[in-house]
Amino acid sequence: MREITELCKRRGIIFQSSEIYGGLRGAWDFGPLGAALKDNVKAAWKRHMIQLRGDVVQLDASVLMHPRVWEASGHIENFTDPLTECRTCNARFRADQVTQGDASTYECPRSDYSLCEFGEPRQFNLLFQTHVGPTQESGSEVWLRPETAQAMFVDFAHVQLTSRQKVPFGIAQVGKSFRNEITPRNFIFRVREFEQMEMEYFVRPGTDEAWHEYWIKHRWDWYTRYGLRAENLRIRPHASDELSHYAKRTVDVEYRFPFAWSELEGIANRTDFDLGAHAETSGKDLTYYDGERDERYLPYVIEPAAGVDRAALAFLIDAYRDEQAPAAKGGTERRVWLQLHHALAPVKVAVLPLSRNEKLVPTAREVADLLRPRFPIEYDDAASIGKRYRRQDEIGTPFCVTVDFETVEDDRAVTVRDRDTMTQERVAIDQLSTYLDERLDLTP
Amino acid sequence: MREITELCKRRGIIFQSSEIYGGLRGAWDFGPLGAALKDNVKAAWKRHMIQLRGDVVQLDASVLMHPRVWEASGHIENFTDPLTECRTCNARFRADQVTQGDASTYECPRSDYSLCEFGEPRQFNLLFQTHVGPTQESGSEVWLRPETAQAMFVDFAHVQLTSRQKVPFGIAQVGKSFRNEITPRNFIFRVREFEQMEMEYFVRPGTDEAWHEYWIKHRWDWYTRYGLRAENLRIRPHASDELSHYAKRTVDVEYRFPFAWSELEGIANRTDFDLGAHAETSGKDLTYYDGERDERYLPYVIEPAAGVDRAALAFLIDAYRDEQAPAAKGGTERRVWLQLHHALAPVKVAVLPLSRNEKLVPTAREVADLLRPRFPIEYDDAASIGKRYRRQDEIGTPFCVTVDFETVEDDRAVTVRDRDTMTQERVAIDQLSTYLDERLDLTP
Repeated sequence: MREITELCKRRGIIFQSSEIYGGLRGAWDFGPLGAALKDNVKAAWKRHMIQLRGDVVQLDASVLMHPRVWEASGHIENFTDPLTECRTCNARFRADQVTQGDASTYECPRSDYSLCEFGEPRQFNLLFQTHVGPTQESGSEVWLRPETAQAMFVDFAHVQLTSRQKVPFGIAQVGKSFRNEITPRNFIFRVREFEQMEMEYFVRPGTDEAWHEYWIKHRWDWYTRYGLRAENLRIRPHASDELSHYAKRTVDVEYRFPFAWSELEGIANRTDFDLGAHAETSGKDLTYYDGERDERYLPYVIEPAAGVDRAALAFLIDAYRDEQAPAAKGGTERRVWLQLHHALAPVKVAVLPLSRNEKLVPTAREVADLLRPRFPIEYDDAASIGKRYRRQDEIGTPFCVTVDFETVEDDRAVTVRDRDTMTQERVAIDQLSTYLDERLDLTP
Repeated sequence: MREITELCKRRGIIFQSSEIYGGLRGAWDFGPLGAALKDNVKAAWKRHMIQLRGDVVQLDASVLMHPRVWEASGHIENFTDPLTECRTCNARFRADQVTQGDASTYECPRSDYSLCEFGEPRQFNLLFQTHVGPTQESGSEVWLRPETAQAMFVDFAHVQLTSRQKVPFGIAQVGKSFRNEITPRNFIFRVREFEQMEMEYFVRPGTDEAWHEYWIKHRWDWYTRYGLRAENLRIRPHASDELSHYAKRTVDVEYRFPFAWSELEGIANRTDFDLGAHAETSGKDLTYYDGERDERYLPYVIEPAAGVDRAALAFLIDAYRDEQAPAAKGGTERRVWLQLHHALAPVKVAVLPLSRNEKLVPTAREVADLLRPRFPIEYDDAASIGKRYRRQDEIGTPFCVTVDFETVEDDRAVTVRDRDTMTQERVAIDQLSTYLDERLDLTP
């Protein structure tokens, strides 16, 4: 984990928000490579959850919603964690973490006995509150959404009507959510601001359990398709005392993170809890008329709810390789590289002039300009070629293209190095796009 | 404008947030087609602002930032609008709108004289405030970012170092921002939650005015490249009393919206105001060492700041066509269609079986499955073929592919209808992908 966080910081992939001000706890920024990785994770999700299917449509709803949404959903009442406070120094912790862990590890800066003494836990609501409009008077409170899901329920009837989808069908959304976690931790794993990829799949009651199984398999296949090794994944059903208030059954897809097996994605059978609650609270009819069966019902909902940040972190960890590789001067040397799926790699091709010699530069730029409209590329002319290969390895770039003196003086060809095999091939510049097109697996 | 908002609501493109609860003012949801349109606008922006260039890198920073960011940027002090309140009914308005408009139009529900009487305006800060951590004590206040730009300044040194970019270079970000507008209005034009596409281009002082001109032209070209007609665009320099506190010069790219010429994008010369303010407030050195000139300076910044929602709205309005077209049965009929650029159209190809006849369905599904991995498609088998063409016209789908009895009984070919010319061509199914690839202009 330390190696990953150091790599992320060193290469500007992920770093603390507002670092020059000492950071903001539970908030992280994604630099150029991290932003591209996240974009690629989201595109891969949309491809398999929406584009390749005919039965799932997209929604992009606002973070701020009407306050009654969170009354109906149960978040105002139930979305809490137990909070405990030291009687002496007032430091606050999640009570379950204090009791599960060793309370004696918390040193109290103000107590003579040196340890924190915790009071009775109370329930702390994790919703972030703000006010809309020009006064902070009662009635103007709104909350930042803690999940994207509620918009799919609130907008269900409108989206179903205008998209003319028939049950079973899904509504999918990618977007930011906010939870005022008491103790953010484990890098980008538990944070206060994060991005979700959620899909609500509306089904006829009675078919919900079969669809639940379908989506568990579908999501497992998605993670392995994009490179997670099956031995680092597992399915863990929630115990009955762990189930959310809305769920009939939930399983987590867990990843073997370096700190522990932890949730990548929850796949819940939310039943008709949410549609029912919104129908009751709003007074609107949210039932669906099933023309084929000539019956009207409130659909059940299967929800695969993934986190963009957690998925990106798992893909990074799983791709991380620290190996001995053959060195140019004989023997072996350490090689750190990311075996990221091509579709997820932030940079697809690096263009490297052998040196900054003025004979090489025009051709190297020509090659870069040739590739740029087709793939995200990086042009790098700083330091030795070996050092530049190592840099690209470290960020998982599938191919490096080197322009040398032979290129400009002789064969109008370049050397293409493959990240995974480290083999090099000579390819004519006018064949290069086709060569890379055939080898880059960008839309699995 | 009424026609556009009705089309948006009817087709589920854009509608009120939390509609079943009466809506939330200043917040809008984008349905399946609207979400795809926004995704396409963002992709087009990233393509021309990042991918096709070598000198701009991406950032994806958090919405919540350290509170001192907004002290340094001047937002806590200056990000205000004048607010005025009726003495009788306490209704609140933006003072400049009341005085510019006709105050007599505001009817007071509580006054015997029937009109509102406004008091002295006071400054109202537009930042949304919330609290992080388990207490609302002083010191835990944070604000939702009112612009994405500040992250590019705060992260400038880290991103420059890790991306090894040299001045001049840019940092670009797409993401949500929040402003507590006193009076949201004009559909999605002035809202409380919106998405920005901002780029901060760092240059050597003295070269800033030339770069400002460069980016004004670049952004104008981007809008026209993706379909806005030049006669509906204009460049308007800010008057000196209208300039933001950080700007040396700003021009707006304005679009001829149905309600008025209004800002699509502001392109500002922010000088070294922001880097200087953050350096002073944080105590960190944010100067840049220019190796070629062997000098150290605080870069100046040119900022093209566009709105995703406004751009999407302008593209929709500019593409809207309400015409008489030849009718199938002779004469003419009304034809409403969107002449959206192919790259922006939410659906690229519609696959339409002539009817739901069981002979047609397998082949129609086969054609859909053939195209799905390549483009976002829609499969539509409901209602007459004429009605389905009109539906696709109305959402700007460039091509409709019809599967008929000849297809399955005779020639294994389909009819392809071109949105713009309404001409139809017979194309063999095994040539269809190539035919569409050649005609769809997806990456201009």
